[in-house]
Amino acid sequence: MCGMRFSTQELVSEFQHIVLASAGEHGYFERTDSPDTAGPTSLIFLQKAEDLPDQVAVVVTSERVALQVAPVTRALVVSVDDVRLAQALMKRRFDPYLSADTEWEAIHPSAVIHASAKVASGCRIGPNAVIGADCELDENVIIRANAVIEHDVRIGRDSVVHTGVNIGYKSQIGERVNIQAGAIIGGEGYGFVPNKEGSYQPVPHTGYVRLHDDVHVGSNTCIDRGTYGVTEIGAGVKIDNLVHVAHNVQVGENTLLTAQTGVAGSSRIGRHVITSGQVGILDHKTVPDHTILLHRAGVTEDIPTGGKYAGTPAQPLKEYVRTITLAKKVAKLEQKLRKLQAQLDAPD
Amino acid sequence: MCGMRFSTQELVSEFQHIVLASAGEHGYFERTDSPDTAGPTSLIFLQKAEDLPDQVAVVVTSERVALQVAPVTRALVVSVDDVRLAQALMKRRFDPYLSADTEWEAIHPSAVIHASAKVASGCRIGPNAVIGADCELDENVIIRANAVIEHDVRIGRDSVVHTGVNIGYKSQIGERVNIQAGAIIGGEGYGFVPNKEGSYQPVPHTGYVRLHDDVHVGSNTCIDRGTYGVTEIGAGVKIDNLVHVAHNVQVGENTLLTAQTGVAGSSRIGRHVITSGQVGILDHKTVPDHTILLHRAGVTEDIPTGGKYAGTPAQPLKEYVRTITLAKKVAKLEQKLRKLQAQLDAPD
Amino acid sequence: MCGMRFSTQELVSEFQHIVLASAGEHGYFERTDSPDTAGPTSLIFLQKAEDLPDQVAVVVTSERVALQVAPVTRALVVSVDDVRLAQALMKRRFDPYLSADTEWEAIHPSAVIHASAKVASGCRIGPNAVIGADCELDENVIIRANAVIEHDVRIGRDSVVHTGVNIGYKSQIGERVNIQAGAIIGGEGYGFVPNKEGSYQPVPHTGYVRLHDDVHVGSNTCIDRGTYGVTEIGAGVKIDNLVHVAHNVQVGENTLLTAQTGVAGSSRIGRHVITSGQVGILDHKTVPDHTILLHRAGVTEDIPTGGKYAGTPAQPLKEYVRTITLAKKVAKLEQKLRKLQAQLDAPD
Repeated sequence: MCGMRFSTQELVSEFQHIVLASAGEHGYFERTDSPDTAGPTSLIFLQKAEDLPDQVAVVVTSERVALQVAPVTRALVVSVDDVRLAQALMKRRFDPYLSADTEWEAIHPSAVIHASAKVASGCRIGPNAVIGADCELDENVIIRANAVIEHDVRIGRDSVVHTGVNIGYKSQIGERVNIQAGAIIGGEGYGFVPNKEGSYQPVPHTGYVRLHDDVHVGSNTCIDRGTYGVTEIGAGVKIDNLVHVAHNVQVGENTLLTAQTGVAGSSRIGRHVITSGQVGILDHKTVPDHTILLHRAGVTEDIPTGGKYAGTPAQPLKEYVRTITLAKKVAKLEQKLRKLQAQLDAPD
Repeated sequence: MCGMRFSTQELVSEFQHIVLASAGEHGYFERTDSPDTAGPTSLIFLQKAEDLPDQVAVVVTSERVALQVAPVTRALVVSVDDVRLAQALMKRRFDPYLSADTEWEAIHPSAVIHASAKVASGCRIGPNAVIGADCELDENVIIRANAVIEHDVRIGRDSVVHTGVNIGYKSQIGERVNIQAGAIIGGEGYGFVPNKEGSYQPVPHTGYVRLHDDVHVGSNTCIDRGTYGVTEIGAGVKIDNLVHVAHNVQVGENTLLTAQTGVAGSSRIGRHVITSGQVGILDHKTVPDHTILLHRAGVTEDIPTGGKYAGTPAQPLKEYVRTITLAKKVAKLEQKLRKLQAQLDAPD
Repeated sequence: MCGMRFSTQELVSEFQHIVLASAGEHGYFERTDSPDTAGPTSLIFLQKAEDLPDQVAVVVTSERVALQVAPVTRALVVSVDDVRLAQALMKRRFDPYLSADTEWEAIHPSAVIHASAKVASGCRIGPNAVIGADCELDENVIIRANAVIEHDVRIGRDSVVHTGVNIGYKSQIGERVNIQAGAIIGGEGYGFVPNKEGSYQPVPHTGYVRLHDDVHVGSNTCIDRGTYGVTEIGAGVKIDNLVHVAHNVQVGENTLLTAQTGVAGSSRIGRHVITSGQVGILDHKTVPDHTILLHRAGVTEDIPTGGKYAGTPAQPLKEYVRTITLAKKVAKLEQKLRKLQAQLDAPD
C-alpha cells in the first residue's frame, strides 16, 4: 500500500474521456488528497484557486481555476468538466481503498459456512461470519467479520457485506452492492391485526428483499422483507445510515434516501428521487420520479408531480417558504390592522 | 416445506370460531398468498372483488365480497368477519414460516454457552451465539447466529432472538417475545451530570429491562435498562424498527410504537397507545391510555386525556388541522384587510 | 458482588471534598438505590423530603432537605451541594457496576486476535470478538463479545467496547471511552456524484474517526469516517442512541447529542452544545459553543451565536414560541377584522 507510485502520463491517458487539458511537467503521485491534507506526492481535487496548497503533485480542477493556478504552481494541472465526478472516478482508481480486512485468510477458518453454500472464486469470508444453506456468492463477493447470511440468499459479483450485517433468507442481492456495517436486510416487517380484545396478532411476513445492482446501504439501516412478495430497491439507489424501509416498499432507480429517513409499508418511491435527512413517508403513498423532499418533509398524501417539497404535511417548496415566513406576515397584519382601527376611530 | 398440502375441510373446522360460511368444492391448498402472487394452490385473503386472481384454491373474504366472487370462481370461498385478522391467524398456521435457520444443529457447536446457563428442551442456539452465566432459557427458545445474551437473563418459552441481538444482564424476557436482528435490549442509558468545570460525569445505570409476554421488538431498536430499577414494556406491545426507548420508561399493554419513534427517560406511555412513525416524547412525560400520536407528534408536555394528537408541540388533532391551514387563512385575512383599507380610503 | 459492605465513615472521608455535613449514627451500607427501590442497607440520593423511604441506611441530599429528614430518620444523612453530581460520583464508586462479562476468561479462546495486535495488561476480550492487524489496546481495555475491531485501531486505557460494535480501520479511540452495543464507528460515509446519465458514482471515503477521552457513544449510533481526513468527536462528548454523525463532522468538547439526532457531512458543532432528541443539522453548517437546540430543531443555516433555538428551520426560542402560538393570534386577528368591518359597514 505504501510506496505505490502512479505516473501522471497514465492518469491522463486512462482518463482521456474526461480530461480536457493538462499543463505543466509530468511526473508521479502517490495518493489522492483534499487540499488541506495534501503533501508533495498528492493528487488533489481543487474547487477554488485560493485553496491551492504549497506542495502538491497533481491538481485536478475546472478550466477556469486551471487558468488561475497553472502559472503559480509546479504541479501538473489537469482540467476537467466536473471536478466532483473526476474525484469519484479517480479516487476509486488510485486510492489504497480497502473494503476487506485483507490481513485474514480469504476464507477465515472461524467462519461457519453451510456445506450446501456455493462460494465462487475470489470471495473473501471474514472471521465468525455465518453463511446459511443454499446460498450462492458470485465472484469476488466479500463477507466481513460476524456478518450473517441466512439460507437461500444470492449475492452478485463484487458486492461487499460489512461486519455484523444480517441478510435475511431468500434475499436477492445484485452486483457491486455495498452494505455497511450493522444493516439488517430482510427483517420481519411490522404487521399486526387487533383481535376483539385489542390484542395484536402478528401477520407472518414471508416475502424477501431484492437489492438491484450498485445499491449502497448505510450503517444500521433496516430494510424489511415483503409480506408475501418483494421489497425492492432499484439499481443505483443509495441509502444512508439509520434509514427504515418497511415491507413491500418499492424504490426506483438512482434514488437517494439520506440519513434517518423512514418509508412506511407498501409506499412507492420513484426514480431519481432525493430525500434529505429525517424525511418521513407514510404507508401506501406514492412519490413520483424526480421529487426532492427537503427540510424533513412528511409525506402524508400522494405527491402529485415531481418537484421540490418540504414541511409536514409535505407541500410544494414555494408554499412551505410562504408558511415559514408566516410569523412575520402576521406581525405586519396586526400592525396594519391597528393603523386601520386608529384611522377609523379618528375624528374626521 | 415444499409439497405440504392442507385440506380445506381442516381449515374450516380448525377455524370454525371465525368462519361464517363457505361456498364451493372442498379440496387442498399449499400456501397462503396475496392476490398478486397467487397460483392454483394458493389460499388468498381478498379485500376487493376486483383483485380476484384467475387461479386460486381458496379465497378468504368478507360476506359482502363472497357474494360477488363465489359465482365467478372455482375456488372455495370462505367468509369471515375480519379478513385481516383471519389472515394473521391463518397465515401463522399454514405458512412455511421459519424463524430459525433450521439447517444448523439445534445447539450449534460454535455457540459459546456458559456452564451455569440452563437451556430447556426444544431450544435452538445458532452459530457463534453467546449465552452468559446463570441464564435461563425456557422451552423452545430460539437464539440465532451471533446474538449475545449477557449473564442472569431469563427468556420465556417460544421466544425468538434474531441474529446479532444483544440482551443485557438481568433482562427479563417473557413468552412468545420476538426480538428482530440487531436490537439492543438493556444498553446503558444516557445519564450524565456536569461538574463545576462543565465536564459530564456518568451516572452508572445498573437496572434492567423487562419485556412482558408477546412483545415484538423491531430491527436495530434500542431499549435502555433502568437507572436502578426497571424499564418495562407491557404485554403485547409491538415496537417497530429503529425505535429508542430510554431508561426507566414504562409502556402499557398493547401499545404500538412505530418506526423511528423516540421516548426519553422516565416517561409513562399508557395502554393501547399508537405512535405513528418518528414520534418524539420528551422525558418524564405522561401519555394516557388510548392516545394516538400522528404526523410525527412531539410530546413536550403531559397529554391530558386520550384521543388524537399531532404536531410539535403535540396538540389535539383538530387544532393541528387548523394550524396547518393557517397559511391560506392568513392570505385571506390580507385580502380582506386590503379591501377594508380601500373601502376606508375611498372617497364617500 | 453480593455481601459487599461499605463503611459510612469511609464514604464521608473519601468524598470530603463534596460532603458539607453529616448527621446521625455511622454504620454500613451495601448498595446505592433510588428512593423507590431502597431497602435497609441502601444508600439513596434524595431530592424531595416526601420521597424518604421507611428503611434506608444512608441519605445523600441537599442541606435544605437534610434539615427536614434528619429528625425523622435513623439513617445517616449526608448533605452535599449538588445531589445529582454526588450520585454520579458515589454510584460509580460503590455500585457493583459490571461493564464486562466477567464470567469469561480475560481473553476468551474463541476471540480472533491478529498476531500483530498489541494487547496491554488488564485487557479483556470477549467470546467471538475480532481484533485486526496492528491494533493497539492500552491497559484495561474491554472488548466485549462479537465486537469487531478492524486493522490499525488504537484504543486508550480503561475504554469499553460493548457487544457487536464495529470500529473501522485507523480509528483513534481515547481513554475511558464507552461505546455501547451495536454502534458503528468509522463506517463509510455517504458521498456520491451523478454522472451524465444520472447514475451516482461513489467517492471512496478513506479517512478515519477520532474519539477523544471520555466520549460516550450510545447503542446503534453511527459515526462515519472522514472523506480524506478525520471525523472528530471532542473530549467528554456524550452521544445517545441511534444518532447519525456523518463524514468530516467536528464536535467540540463536552457537547451532548441526544437520541436520534442527525448531523450531516462537514458540519461543525461547538463546545457545550446540547441537542435534544431528533434534532437535525444539515451539511456544512456551524453551530457555535453553548447552543441549545430544542423541540427537534432543524438547523438549515449557520447558527449565528449561542443560545436557545427550536423549530424547523431553527429560530431563536422566543421567535419559535411566538410562531407556535400563531394560530391563536390569527383567530384573534380574524375577530378584530370582523368587528372593524362591522364598524365600517354600520350606518353612522
